[in-house]
Amino acid sequence: MSVSTNSPSVAQQAVPENEVEQVELLAAVEDLYGGVVVDVTEPMDSAVFASLLQASISQWRQKGKKGVWIKLPIERSNLVDAAVKEGFRYHHAESDYLMLVRWISETDDTLPANASHRVGIGAFVMNSKREVLVVQELSGRFSNTDVWKMPTGVVNEGEDICEAAVREVKEETGIDTEFVEVLAFRQSHKSFFRKSDLFIVCMLTPKSFDIQEQNLEIEAAQWMPVADYAAQPFVKKNKLFDYIAKICLAKSDKNYVGFTALGTTTSSGKRSYLYYNNRDMENLLATGDPQ
Amino acid sequence: MSVSTNSPSVAQQAVPENEVEQVELLAAVEDLYGGVVVDVTEPMDSAVFASLLQASISQWRQKGKKGVWIKLPIERSNLVDAAVKEGFRYHHAESDYLMLVRWISETDDTLPANASHRVGIGAFVMNSKREVLVVQELSGRFSNTDVWKMPTGVVNEGEDICEAAVREVKEETGIDTEFVEVLAFRQSHKSFFRKSDLFIVCMLTPKSFDIQEQNLEIEAAQWMPVADYAAQPFVKKNKLFDYIAKICLAKSDKNYVGFTALGTTTSSGKRSYLYYNNRDMENLLATGDPQ
Repeated sequence: MSVSTNSPSVAQQAVPENEVEQVELLAAVEDLYGGVVVDVTEPMDSAVFASLLQASISQWRQKGKKGVWIKLPIERSNLVDAAVKEGFRYHHAESDYLMLVRWISETDDTLPANASHRVGIGAFVMNSKREVLVVQELSGRFSNTDVWKMPTGVVNEGEDICEAAVREVKEETGIDTEFVEVLAFRQSHKSFFRKSDLFIVCMLTPKSFDIQEQNLEIEAAQWMPVADYAAQPFVKKNKLFDYIAKICLAKSDKNYVGFTALGTTTSSGKRSYLYYNNRDMENLLATGDPQ
Repeated sequence: MSVSTNSPSVAQQAVPENEVEQVELLAAVEDLYGGVVVDVTEPMDSAVFASLLQASISQWRQKGKKGVWIKLPIERSNLVDAAVKEGFRYHHAESDYLMLVRWISETDDTLPANASHRVGIGAFVMNSKREVLVVQELSGRFSNTDVWKMPTGVVNEGEDICEAAVREVKEETGIDTEFVEVLAFRQSHKSFFRKSDLFIVCMLTPKSFDIQEQNLEIEAAQWMPVADYAAQPFVKKNKLFDYIAKICLAKSDKNYVGFTALGTTTSSGKRSYLYYNNRDMENLLATGDPQ
């Protein structure tokens, strides 16, 4: 077998000079869990790839490796079949790559699960006149109906929930807002192929008031008295929507406390938000440390 | 081109008898959004598949279809490369299939995003002696340390958060519990490849008390005074863990209200849970309808 070792995907194993045989292996990075990750960035013939993979697995097994990950950019789609034929299964995919995995150890498979949820937000935005910001959509379940609903959208990859709510309101209505708190959330299943869905209802306060529909998906937007919003038949007939509307009404009367967002930074410097009932914690801290 | 029309993946287009040409197409099911879904269940040669796909796309485009989905079971991995060469990109993958997609319309691409989050739970279980249920793990960040942490785990596909918390506690400690409420949740990013993570802290009440470590991942489990749990250095040093511990302490003193779970059933019969501040809503309902 003759393979150029110039390819960053191929590593030549260091062997003593007096050994006759040279074994070529796929280049791999070790992870923290006894596994190896192969990232095939350069073009490769599928038969060559299959041979290298077989030799590499033999070597990794001898070294006591457990999980083998292969990240194939979509440009390397010619290698998918060879990896599957070598016993790999799919783990997850994004538009530009496919991740395959194989457990090569005798021990129990402890490979992590794939992402299972989409996270969406609904934005409850109310002005000082007790009017709530509502939209009509061009497509989807409520298109071509007279239903006025709160702005909704999907949280992007890597986006914070509190920021996604502000972005969606801006995109759909042109209104600037500030995140206040999470009022409630709903988990539902099989909303999208086999995936589950977390729909997070956020309250926001408006910082501007002139509506400009900016999104191609929005038919119309307006400020609507909150009682009128809650009285719509599509809200009253659906137990969940009805409950959410009641929570929003309670919030508008300042009789409801949701979860506020506390920004924290981990020891590794990653920022994340904790959502919790801040009123109860503030009451406690005002009367002494809860401990 | 000669392809057996016995295959459920191949449909013969209905044409008038006086037409000379018969065009064979991939069998597809229409979705509610102007798209078609191809599910290739039977074995097929990749060159045949490529030809059928080209002819089918031409036909779907004439019919005004927008998105084309191809679901390839892992047994059909020989067809991945052909689909990519026809302009398809990956959408998502599970262990047993790969979903590819292509937008064939001139209009803006409105294809839904892939699942972006993993959802995990942490279980705060306290008995009447103000002792909290804690474990030591065999692997992961805190293995081989003297850290005692609350039971944690990943919510399975299609599993409710409130049920996942009960299951994880049972699996790790043998203790039966009942879900009380969500105390707080944290969103963090890039916790798992490019995916985000929602970690949901749940409070549960124990219904049994004899610990039996049942899970291979658990080194030890015990009941520990809640103040001792919160005083551990790994908790005190981490702002997030410290805050969560303070919330749990507040809860143990009955000074904190999280989100309870309300089971609802949608009009299509799907069950889902709404998580919200039930104490505030109960107070309101006791003093009259919030409207």
